[in-house]
Amino acid sequence: MTQNSNAALFLEKKLLGSLPGLSIDCVIFGYKNHELFILLLQWKHDNMWSLPGGFIHKDEDMDKAAYRVLKERTGLDSIFLSQFHTFGNRDRIGKEHENSLKKRQLLLKELYKNQPKIIEWLNKRFITTGYFALVDINQTNPKPDFMTIQCAWQSIKSIPSTIMDHREIIEKALQQLRIQLNYLPVGLSLLPTKFTMQDLQKLYEAILQKKLERSNFQRKMLKLDVLVRHEKQMTGAANKAPYLYSFNQEKYDLLLKKGIGLSF
Amino acid sequence: MTQNSNAALFLEKKLLGSLPGLSIDCVIFGYKNHELFILLLQWKHDNMWSLPGGFIHKDEDMDKAAYRVLKERTGLDSIFLSQFHTFGNRDRIGKEHENSLKKRQLLLKELYKNQPKIIEWLNKRFITTGYFALVDINQTNPKPDFMTIQCAWQSIKSIPSTIMDHREIIEKALQQLRIQLNYLPVGLSLLPTKFTMQDLQKLYEAILQKKLERSNFQRKMLKLDVLVRHEKQMTGAANKAPYLYSFNQEKYDLLLKKGIGLSF
Repeated sequence: MTQNSNAALFLEKKLLGSLPGLSIDCVIFGYKNHELFILLLQWKHDNMWSLPGGFIHKDEDMDKAAYRVLKERTGLDSIFLSQFHTFGNRDRIGKEHENSLKKRQLLLKELYKNQPKIIEWLNKRFITTGYFALVDINQTNPKPDFMTIQCAWQSIKSIPSTIMDHREIIEKALQQLRIQLNYLPVGLSLLPTKFTMQDLQKLYEAILQKKLERSNFQRKMLKLDVLVRHEKQMTGAANKAPYLYSFNQEKYDLLLKKGIGLSF
Repeated sequence: MTQNSNAALFLEKKLLGSLPGLSIDCVIFGYKNHELFILLLQWKHDNMWSLPGGFIHKDEDMDKAAYRVLKERTGLDSIFLSQFHTFGNRDRIGKEHENSLKKRQLLLKELYKNQPKIIEWLNKRFITTGYFALVDINQTNPKPDFMTIQCAWQSIKSIPSTIMDHREIIEKALQQLRIQLNYLPVGLSLLPTKFTMQDLQKLYEAILQKKLERSNFQRKMLKLDVLVRHEKQMTGAANKAPYLYSFNQEKYDLLLKKGIGLSF
């Protein structure tokens, strides 16, 4: 059995058993070495990049579909996904991607020449719901599925060319993440247990993509009353080392619930 | 032409020209006399209440559909709608509403006995995207369409029995509105140009559905640096009157953009 017929069978079963016109896309941000990355798939048939996405089975909750899609596409599991926006513009494909779309449609016609139902299903207008997560890259090991060449972390400073409106979906997710920095604590699963104030600042800077003022940042963070400062080890030159902090788990969880800001 | 056949024609044209399996629901919160209300429609065929909702035309952006749906259903126009969540649970209808659903399906069968396509279209599983707004009730004049008996503001303290998962959609919108109180300013189009600190507090209390402590509230609000305090008119007993405030429009708009909270 060739890889193509394998893929055809897989898709046929998948597609016709899924809700038509609806998809899910996952924006997985990863943090490593003070830099923010995003997980993208590169497709075999046209080398284009896309978010890990898929469809909702006819008898499946949409939220559950998001977890399944991420798992199937990238092997990633146990990541907390949060729905952030549904993209419903009529022209989600975009003028600049029409050539790529035509190429893709020709490929589909070739792949499914005796299955007009599948071609019809795939050529419909799709509305997609975006889910996002922020993970520690060191804790994950994503793997491509049989339709993709690779599943790679790309720096948000140099995102490769993506299909359809995936760039817009990524930007919206980033915007959402940045808004959340204003009213939710961030860092618990992304930093080592003990970290310096500079480590925390670099995480915020990577997400915001801008430099922050050191003393102002420190003041804001300490005011949250969620950090525990550890005693310096007074051996050798250690007293020149910066203070180490950790999160107070209880206070962190409370802050996640009640939010920063005015917090009524 | 009877009202029923009118409705049948209207629906036929609407439904088959819309994206299948997808709907839009609008949660319109209204504020009046220190109380928070929600706009609900009562249906002719079964007297049940629902959110103003509808479908997306095949050639229409989803956001535009939301404005059109609200306008068609309630006559309301020029309201800023903001998308807040997409509801995709498999069992959106809910066990407790199955009887109501059966009744509705019988009605549909009667109404469309010669149009199996419409019945099939309506009986599919639907995923709905919620949009919400907060408006001054005095500035609006909602009117029911031909399918509904009334379009009424209901206090959020006593929401009548609603169809499917509309209660859950309302709760989610309220939750979103309450979170926004923590990081966005509220009140500009809901309060008169000049208002007392108590007026502002009552607005927050109506949204949060809880009493707030007066001096603590005042401190938080003044700290936002978005209020202008006006001089008291020194005539008669006016000096006993509370201070009047208004919003500094420029600072208010800036705060809407950058957010309260840590605001990096």
